Amino acid sequence: MKFSIFKDKLTEAQSNTEQALDQWLPKPEGHQAVIMDAMRYAALGGGKRIRPFLLAETAELFGRDDDAVWGAASALECVHVYSLIHDDLPCMDDDNLRRGKPTVHIAYDEAIAVLAGDGLLTQAFEIMSGLDVSADVRVKLIQSLAKAAGTQGMIGGQVIDIMADEASRTEELISQLQSLKTGALIRYAVEAGSILGSANADQTENLLAYADDLGLIFQITDDILDVEGDAKRVGKAVKKDENLGKATFVSILGLEGAKEKARNLATRAKGRLEPFGQKAQILVDTVDYILVRDQ
Amino acid sequence: MKFSIFKDKLTEAQSNTEQALDQWLPKPEGHQAVIMDAMRYAALGGGKRIRPFLLAETAELFGRDDDAVWGAASALECVHVYSLIHDDLPCMDDDNLRRGKPTVHIAYDEAIAVLAGDGLLTQAFEIMSGLDVSADVRVKLIQSLAKAAGTQGMIGGQVIDIMADEASRTEELISQLQSLKTGALIRYAVEAGSILGSANADQTENLLAYADDLGLIFQITDDILDVEGDAKRVGKAVKKDENLGKATFVSILGLEGAKEKARNLATRAKGRLEPFGQKAQILVDTVDYILVRDQ
Repeated sequence: MKFSIFKDKLTEAQSNTEQALDQWLPKPEGHQAVIMDAMRYAALGGGKRIRPFLLAETAELFGRDDDAVWGAASALECVHVYSLIHDDLPCMDDDNLRRGKPTVHIAYDEAIAVLAGDGLLTQAFEIMSGLDVSADVRVKLIQSLAKAAGTQGMIGGQVIDIMADEASRTEELISQLQSLKTGALIRYAVEAGSILGSANADQTENLLAYADDLGLIFQITDDILDVEGDAKRVGKAVKKDENLGKATFVSILGLEGAKEKARNLATRAKGRLEPFGQKAQILVDTVDYILVRDQ
Repeated sequence: MKFSIFKDKLTEAQSNTEQALDQWLPKPEGHQAVIMDAMRYAALGGGKRIRPFLLAETAELFGRDDDAVWGAASALECVHVYSLIHDDLPCMDDDNLRRGKPTVHIAYDEAIAVLAGDGLLTQAFEIMSGLDVSADVRVKLIQSLAKAAGTQGMIGGQVIDIMADEASRTEELISQLQSLKTGALIRYAVEAGSILGSANADQTENLLAYADDLGLIFQITDDILDVEGDAKRVGKAVKKDENLGKATFVSILGLEGAKEKARNLATRAKGRLEPFGQKAQILVDTVDYILVRDQ
């Protein structure tokens, strides 16, 4: 029953994100129209929109649900999509399929893929700087986004992932790697919602702790899906990490061990939300959704 | 005589920019240290620093010369350097040499080059968001930077450059291309200086018109250097555009025609500065410096 409310909210967030992206992404025009086209190809028409959803649900804890929230959510999604485009490049993971569609460097070419990623990252900051909130809030949103996406955040995680040799891939290293590569933007989603909702220090601390646990659950279940998943449903090649011989939570902890770790983190994550009571039910349900997802 | 003052100011700007970059760029640390290292390799120890210089000289017109100015100048230089790293990639211009040093994808590898560019672009917004000026000014600096660097600015120009076939390379198209690819950040340098100096609307209009002329002169002289230059001095491969059969201002207007166009623009650019009187002498000298530069 409650899960159906969660699913309705997620579907609504997907639709609002799509609409905000369509509104905030530049329309194809001029001799450079192909770049706007490629950015839209990558950003629109799909994606789980977990980050925008988390941002919006966190803001809603504080009674906030307006255009600025969905603008910030779409900016965050631009950063996520840019990272996917660049990660998929031949010089990185060399993936041909993403969300069930040819990746940008396949659908267009490599140069356009690099530039479409650059364009989405740049656009994210343009969107944030134009939100209908105070300049103070915009600066906070921008500063935290730059930190989350930068070398001490998402980019740092990607670098560790491509540089770490097999011997160094301990559970500790892949935890750190994932807390940067995947975790930083999930944490940012909750941070941005807290900023927009003017959360106090205690509330922010609890919410960020929740986000950190959630990010790790997300990665562990990703590793589990990589072993157990169905390529068609997941929308990208599965068993890829295993084929590459890359250590994952599953290869280190075993399938059951990884599942147990995820369940324990889930219990802790939900505990972080207790101070918010019933209002946080959707964020509680999000933990279960991530835990049992099949894509 | 006055030219020696100009050269002293330029040298000072180079030193201040180097110092600000060193201060604002993250120090190599953690398992991802290589990315901070690559960003520093690309950004430090060279470069004409024309954009930071223009930003600082414009701000100084309004009596402003402080850490925020050099912080903004270093952020702008990060965007410029990121664009060079990505433009040099094998899938774009495929250049091995930049400022007399191996390009980032040669000195490191392609994945690190993509990520170092991403890191510098992200860092630019982190720097801007942390400047010691009002939140209003920071938001203005960020919004204008995102526009100047984005698909309606620098990225747009790069896309036109890689997409335009030979038949379409008219003088009009390459003017538009260059006003985006090179011009947008030169214009931004002057815009950011105006924002930091709280210039009024008339002053800003004159300064931006000056910047637009200067950007075009910069590109025309670049094309001239590409034909007449000495590879060692220019610090990159010359005659490259000619070898590629790419239309340039020189191939369309002829060498003398291009030089005349640059001279005419120089006269107009200097005229834009008349309302500022003697205070703008360094910006006037900058026109001559760009016009007669040999690198």
